[in-house]
Parts: sequence; C-alpha cells; structure tokens
Amino acid sequence: MKEYISLSHGSGGALTRKLVHEIFAAAFDNAYLRKLDDASVVTLAGGRYAMTTDSFVVDPIVFPGGDIGKLAVCGTVNDLASCGAEPKYLSASFVIEEGFALGSLRTIVSSMAREAREQKTAIVTGDTKVVPRGKADKLFINTTGIGFVHKLLDTKKIRPGDKILINGPVAQHGLSILASRQGFEGRTSIKSDCKSLWGIVKLLLQEHVDVHFMRDPTRGGVSAAANEIAQSCGFSLALLEKRIPATASCRSLCEILGLEPLDIANEGKMLFFVGESDAPKALRLLRSVPSCRQAALIGEVLSEKKSKVYLETSAGGSRVLGMPVTDAIPRIC
Amino acid sequence: MKEYISLSHGSGGALTRKLVHEIFAAAFDNAYLRKLDDASVVTLAGGRYAMTTDSFVVDPIVFPGGDIGKLAVCGTVNDLASCGAEPKYLSASFVIEEGFALGSLRTIVSSMAREAREQKTAIVTGDTKVVPRGKADKLFINTTGIGFVHKLLDTKKIRPGDKILINGPVAQHGLSILASRQGFEGRTSIKSDCKSLWGIVKLLLQEHVDVHFMRDPTRGGVSAAANEIAQSCGFSLALLEKRIPATASCRSLCEILGLEPLDIANEGKMLFFVGESDAPKALRLLRSVPSCRQAALIGEVLSEKKSKVYLETSAGGSRVLGMPVTDAIPRIC
Repeated sequence: MKEYISLSHGSGGALTRKLVHEIFAAAFDNAYLRKLDDASVVTLAGGRYAMTTDSFVVDPIVFPGGDIGKLAVCGTVNDLASCGAEPKYLSASFVIEEGFALGSLRTIVSSMAREAREQKTAIVTGDTKVVPRGKADKLFINTTGIGFVHKLLDTKKIRPGDKILINGPVAQHGLSILASRQGFEGRTSIKSDCKSLWGIVKLLLQEHVDVHFMRDPTRGGVSAAANEIAQSCGFSLALLEKRIPATASCRSLCEILGLEPLDIANEGKMLFFVGESDAPKALRLLRSVPSCRQAALIGEVLSEKKSKVYLETSAGGSRVLGMPVTDAIPRIC
Repeated sequence: MKEYISLSHGSGGALTRKLVHEIFAAAFDNAYLRKLDDASVVTLAGGRYAMTTDSFVVDPIVFPGGDIGKLAVCGTVNDLASCGAEPKYLSASFVIEEGFALGSLRTIVSSMAREAREQKTAIVTGDTKVVPRGKADKLFINTTGIGFVHKLLDTKKIRPGDKILINGPVAQHGLSILASRQGFEGRTSIKSDCKSLWGIVKLLLQEHVDVHFMRDPTRGGVSAAANEIAQSCGFSLALLEKRIPATASCRSLCEILGLEPLDIANEGKMLFFVGESDAPKALRLLRSVPSCRQAALIGEVLSEKKSKVYLETSAGGSRVLGMPVTDAIPRIC
C-alpha cells in the first residue's frame, strides 16, 4: 500500500517517532543521531558542543505572547539548554511566500533579534528563499544552534527515586495558538509561555543541582516528553495530576474542548529530572525566579522497568498516560 | 508605500542583497553577519569553525543530475568548502506537505544520506514539520553545517593580478531545473552539475596553492558572485567570455531563451581567486580531477578600484557584467 505523510507525522507523537526512526535515523545512521535527542553533542577542537535544528511553521505567525521570530530563537535556545548547553551561535533561514508584507517581516526579524540579544547569542549566518504565492504559508523560519555543553546529561543518568520538576503551568503555548486561530484570542487571557530557558538551566547548573536529565515538553506536551524519556531510560514514571500547574483559563478551555492539558505544547517549560536529595533545592531555586513562581515537583521515577508513564489522577485513581498519537493542535511551532 | 516580498527578493541578485542588508543584517547586527559571506567563521574551544545554513525549496524536487536531498547536502558542503572549511557536522530539517508520498521521502532521504557519507559528514540532528496540503510545496529541506577551517580566506586577501579560475562549465544546474520544469528534460542532455566541492578545495589547500578567496556561484550565477566579490574587495574584475566553459547544449538553450549563461545558477562550481604565480599550478591540479577536466582560467583582478565586473566579449568588445536584478529561473535551490 502506498503511504503518504499525514499531519500526525508532524505531531511530535507516536507517528513522528515512527517516521524519524524508520526513515531519517535509518538512512542517516550514526552514533549522534541514534540517540534521537533534541540536540546532538559533538566534539569540536576538543570541546563539547551541542547542535540542534528546528523549522518553525507556526500558524498564525503572531500570537498572544509571541510571534514566529521569538519562537524560532526560544525553541532552539531551549533545545540547547535541555542538553545543558549555553547557546553560542545561531543560524536563521527564511522561506518567504511571495506577497508577504516587508513590514511584517521587519517586525518578526526585530523580535528574533531582541530575543537573541537577550540570550547573548549571535545570529551568525542566514539564508533567504522566496517561493511563489500559494507555495508556502507566509513565512517559515529555520534556526540551528550551537551551544557549549556545561554538563553532559543523558537519560542513562536517570535513577529510580529521581524527582521530576517543571518550572510553571502547562499547555499555554498550544492553547494560545488555538485561541488565536479560532479568533477568540481577545476573549481569553491565555498567552503563550514562549520563553528562553537557558537562564534557569544555568542557575541550576551553577548551583550544582544534581540534574540528571532535562527536556522541554514542546510538541506533544508533557505526555510525549515523559513517554520518550521513559522509553529511553527504561524506568516507569509517575506523575501527580494535582501537582501539575495549569492556569484556570487553560484548564477551562481544555475541559470545554475535551483536550488533555498534558498533550498540549509548551514553549517555555522544562522538565527537570533531579536526584531525590536535591529536589527541594532545585524547587527553591526555580521559585526564586519571578517567571517560575509556580514551579512544582510533579512526579518521580519508579523502579519498575516498564517504560510506562502513570498519571495519579486528581480523583485518586491512576492511569497510563500514553504518547499522543495524533495532534491535538497542529502547527504550533 | 507598503512593500511586499517578490520572487526577485529570492533571486540571489540585487534585491536579495538589499533585503539581507536592510532587514536581516540591520536587525541581527554583529561582526560575523556583517561580512555577509556564505558562511561565518566562529571560534569554538579555541578552534576556527565555519557555520552556514541553507533552506532548499527547489522545484521540481527531482531533476536530471540530482534531487533536493543531494542538493541540500552539496549546497551546504560547498558553502563550507568556499570558506576553506572541511564539512564536519550537518543538521537536516524537513518541512513536508501533508499527502507527500512516504516512498518519495525515503528516496530523497537516501540520496542525502549517500552524499553525506561520501563527504564523510555526519547528519547529527534533525527536525520534521508537516503542514496541511497547499501550505507548502511538497518538501523543503534546511541543512546547516559546521566545518573545520583549514585556511582563512577573505576578500581582503584579493590582490590586483590575482587569477580567477573555475572548475568546469557554467549554467548546468539552473538550465536542468528549467528543462525539467518545462517538461523537456528528456529531449536535452543538460544535467545539473550538483556536486560536493570539498574534495577539490582540499586538494588545492593540501598542495599549498596560494588561494586568496573562493565562492560557489549558485543563485545569480557567476554574475552575482563576481559582483559581490568585486563589491567586497573593492577592485574591478575582468572576465574573458570565450574562456568561460559551457557545454554546447547549455549555450544553445541560453541562446534560444535569451538567457545570459553567467546569470544562471551552478551547484558544483567554484570560483577560485589565486595568486598570479600559482595559477598554472592550480589549473593543473584542478584538471587532474576527472570531473574538472574543463577547468579554466577565466579572468583576473584589475588594479582599478571601482568594484566593477567587465566581460571581455567573444566578439572583441567589453561590457559591464551587472548583478542580475531579477531571477532568470526562480526556485533553483
């Protein structure tokens, strides 16, 4: 049977994983790519550097809390940060649809420039392509980043008893996109959490917190990230639903639309896997940052070697939190 | 007046230059980007590395002599090579249109993998996005590369008297795209010259040829590359039309369509600026490579400081070869 690419192949969930495994990793096979991490650690002149790439196709290109430009810098910075790497150099490549307003391009480019400056990261090289009207949707941006690895992290370092922390409420980014796409962004207070996370990662590393692993739960949300980590480390994870922060408006919107908040994308959140004894210190440090007051300890690593993710529900039960198969909200990044 | 992006903004000619200067370089302003070279040289762990990025939107995605996958590797390898850099690590990011055949994706990915293997370059990190039908044209690929700089090159090293060499016939890539787009690819022998050039660059550097500068004349062809170099070094250049190699079929097609072969994109050509006394050695070395038998000395750097490019025509006259303003053939890479 002839097979075709579906939107779910881009969801960050089970089908993306299958596509990446069976087509990309199989063909490009090498030790770096085999880990299928958000970035790869390579050796350059004897130093350890992380390299990561992301193409941004978010629709709409401007949303409450950010735009495709800010997102393109934050997304790549966060993939580096999740590898314990300080962002150093970024590339920026633009695919622009003919007829796109130069003024809008200028706004988005300024937004990228501002975010890069704040992160003390230089956009050192770029590329521009223009395609005829109807051959792309306004603007796609690729950013690729190189970062200096301060601490080597690996799912192999995850141990039973490790605590799982998150730096704030979930689902804001995906829902802000959904709200603006449906035209009701003016009627909700939901804003994207789009934010560069190197700052808080640096803080934890500088204070020698015993961080074993980190992952920013973007496409596929906490569900996809937790499942990937469980698969990779071999242990099962337990998440406590009532501890997972979410704003009232996000909770309501999810309830109305029948969405699972843990499946929804974040763009300013990090899951930290921290050695048990250092968890209180990590939480205190995170909460000392104004944007992370709602940081929370949301779960732990179990000794069971089944690679499952259990969600202890607020109602008192427990269920398996699966990898999202389709895309709750497509094109969120 | 409200301004919009036109196809010519992506031509690699004067409008691309204006866009890059006024919007991207102005906003991202830093010493790396200010050079507006095809790649930037950055320092990592005390070593010099080049970083370059390219998004490929070629239409059609398969053409005589290659496909978008091979092109995505060669294009980035060649941008590194033109900086005297040995390709080390590549990232690959895919924007795929919903409904694209998995079989075609597999073929293109294999073609990338094969080219990367031949170049001893690892694709270490990647990303996949899927957009709804009609929101992208089949498949766009971004590759970003990091290479180790063997020799620092700069237009500042260009001197009057330097000889300009090219490793073979011009205009093949752009014309092969045009031919396949018009559906007459079966009736011409024109094939893309799509090829990784690190091999020949390495040869010249290993043999200590006094190379001052290199540039691969892709979008905008030899005309755009020569004009950019003249602008950057300040000297005028003289090119000898009758010395510039082109196949008979390329010449005929250009004549029929009223195209200037020097404006047409190449994907396997390099312009070498070589110290006068080393030019014969460089030519001999290039011609020793089977794929470069038609390498030629095609011009020289003048002492005039007007940043002009003169073409000494076959008819015996001389004219200014301008930067192409619009795109002879859009979406060639």
